[in-house]
Amino acid sequence: MALPLALTMGDPAGIGGELTVKAWRARHRAGPVFFALDDPARLAALGVAVREISAPEEAGAAFTEALPVLPMRLAVPPVAGLPAAENAAAIIGSIRLATELAMTGHVGAVVTNPINKAALYQAGFAYPGHTEFLAALTGAQNLPVMMLACPALRVVPVTIHLALRHAIAALTTQAIVTTARITRAALCDQFGIVRPRLAMAGLNPHAGEGGALGDEEINIINPAIAQLRAAGADISGPWPPDTMFTEAARQTYDVAICMYHDQALIPLKTLDMHRGVNVTLGLPIVRTSPDHGTAYDIAGKGVADATSLIAALDLAAELAAQNSNSGPST
Amino acid sequence: MALPLALTMGDPAGIGGELTVKAWRARHRAGPVFFALDDPARLAALGVAVREISAPEEAGAAFTEALPVLPMRLAVPPVAGLPAAENAAAIIGSIRLATELAMTGHVGAVVTNPINKAALYQAGFAYPGHTEFLAALTGAQNLPVMMLACPALRVVPVTIHLALRHAIAALTTQAIVTTARITRAALCDQFGIVRPRLAMAGLNPHAGEGGALGDEEINIINPAIAQLRAAGADISGPWPPDTMFTEAARQTYDVAICMYHDQALIPLKTLDMHRGVNVTLGLPIVRTSPDHGTAYDIAGKGVADATSLIAALDLAAELAAQNSNSGPST
Repeated sequence: MALPLALTMGDPAGIGGELTVKAWRARHRAGPVFFALDDPARLAALGVAVREISAPEEAGAAFTEALPVLPMRLAVPPVAGLPAAENAAAIIGSIRLATELAMTGHVGAVVTNPINKAALYQAGFAYPGHTEFLAALTGAQNLPVMMLACPALRVVPVTIHLALRHAIAALTTQAIVTTARITRAALCDQFGIVRPRLAMAGLNPHAGEGGALGDEEINIINPAIAQLRAAGADISGPWPPDTMFTEAARQTYDVAICMYHDQALIPLKTLDMHRGVNVTLGLPIVRTSPDHGTAYDIAGKGVADATSLIAALDLAAELAAQNSNSGPST
Repeated sequence: MALPLALTMGDPAGIGGELTVKAWRARHRAGPVFFALDDPARLAALGVAVREISAPEEAGAAFTEALPVLPMRLAVPPVAGLPAAENAAAIIGSIRLATELAMTGHVGAVVTNPINKAALYQAGFAYPGHTEFLAALTGAQNLPVMMLACPALRVVPVTIHLALRHAIAALTTQAIVTTARITRAALCDQFGIVRPRLAMAGLNPHAGEGGALGDEEINIINPAIAQLRAAGADISGPWPPDTMFTEAARQTYDVAICMYHDQALIPLKTLDMHRGVNVTLGLPIVRTSPDHGTAYDIAGKGVADATSLIAALDLAAELAAQNSNSGPST
């Protein structure tokens, strides 16, 4: 039987609890089995039947009847939209425990609800975000890589949360090669694609048009492609960014390696706003998360859309099944 | 009765002739009526019945039976994929005459087939492209603005064919304001939208996130929005670029003002690769064109897709009808 998935609490002042409840309602009759590392009382207050469990192995039996919860007690009752530093320890503890359970083979994957970094920094959290924290917890060799995936498209941005001018300045052959290598390995190992086809985006309009519209393709991207090919990668490009996400073009690759945040995110969200899932590549565990934040503005109103979290759970289960014979264990 | 549309020859070494023939086949039973300013012999050689006309007024009577052609004789027979400087005069003459016919009220709009600038430069053509030539011919006050339109989306890039780093450097409040003003006026006057809703894109991921991911929103884009609002424009933004092209977001505006080429073109071509039409705003005439080039690589093979040219003709007819009571005349 498949291992259950561990779903973290996220920021309890955000929409995470509501999403967890909605995801359980959507999936409790037909799996994948997951449990929340969360405060049972606050989830029960959202109107769902909860079942406290003391180990991941108990989740499967409970799942059809109630939302299984491995208890993480909050220090103060959450208030929608108002993050509380007192609850940072529980939020961080939820991530830490979920990761340990994955590293020790008790859960198939970690799925994380959104956190608010600013609120955690006040409580002494020292990582730029979820991903860096997970890398530290799992002893990952490289800084992990962020993939966004929806049924129509997978994209991996080489640079992420930088001003566009800084993203251009930060673009190096080495960064592209490292990102593409981690991506390729993950597509093989975690996604089960035997020979992944990578499509490399250009940076400039028309992919630079031979140097007339920018030289980064010539000086930075082409050398990266050459290195990757020398290492055996099936990689095409650099492609003109505006035509590489059409339906016909998407049939020719398994993942698009993109040069900056919006080059990756515009096509993904334009094609499929709600089913985008964030997958962290390069960790020794499977980790997915919804492709949005804490949404304080709508927290507590019951209107949050759980589609992305549900897609994150489904994809995590799929990847966990793929990895079930090769994942880490005690 | 609606005025006919003037369709230019474009580069006869490219796919223009084939597109003209395919567009006539697709539309000759149910308009809009157009005629080609082209070489009758070379079009006849493509296997279509042609009818030489001596004035635009004769196009309507011929259109259902044959492709009407206002003759522009080529100096040398065209060879697919090999531009000939000897034919530059006919290519340029076709654009010039079509524009004059529009300025004098004999045609409803100008639709242009793709040209190859490099080939024309050799023959002394002194403009960066079609658009600048048309601006000079029509005495346009400002440099015209390029809109790309498909049924799902209209976009206007503030900067166009520049390396991405140069596009960022070229972005000014004045450029944004001028582009948005011309766009707004054209949506009112040419598209008949009484109160156009403009959506302004941010430049940076998350529209800069309050300055954390770039300051162009604060220093350049917000002041432009303020100026435009002070002038009465209905304008929203700056929006995070990745979420402003979703189906729900697109319902809230009539046009997206984009900061750079791919920010505009990625969503448009991802949504609708083939029906994108280039519309030149800010001219005293209606001008549209297909959203692609001469495609020398497939010229003469009969495989070119005429969808964009047909969409350009249809949109030109729609805009011409909209303008029929207000356009320029002798």
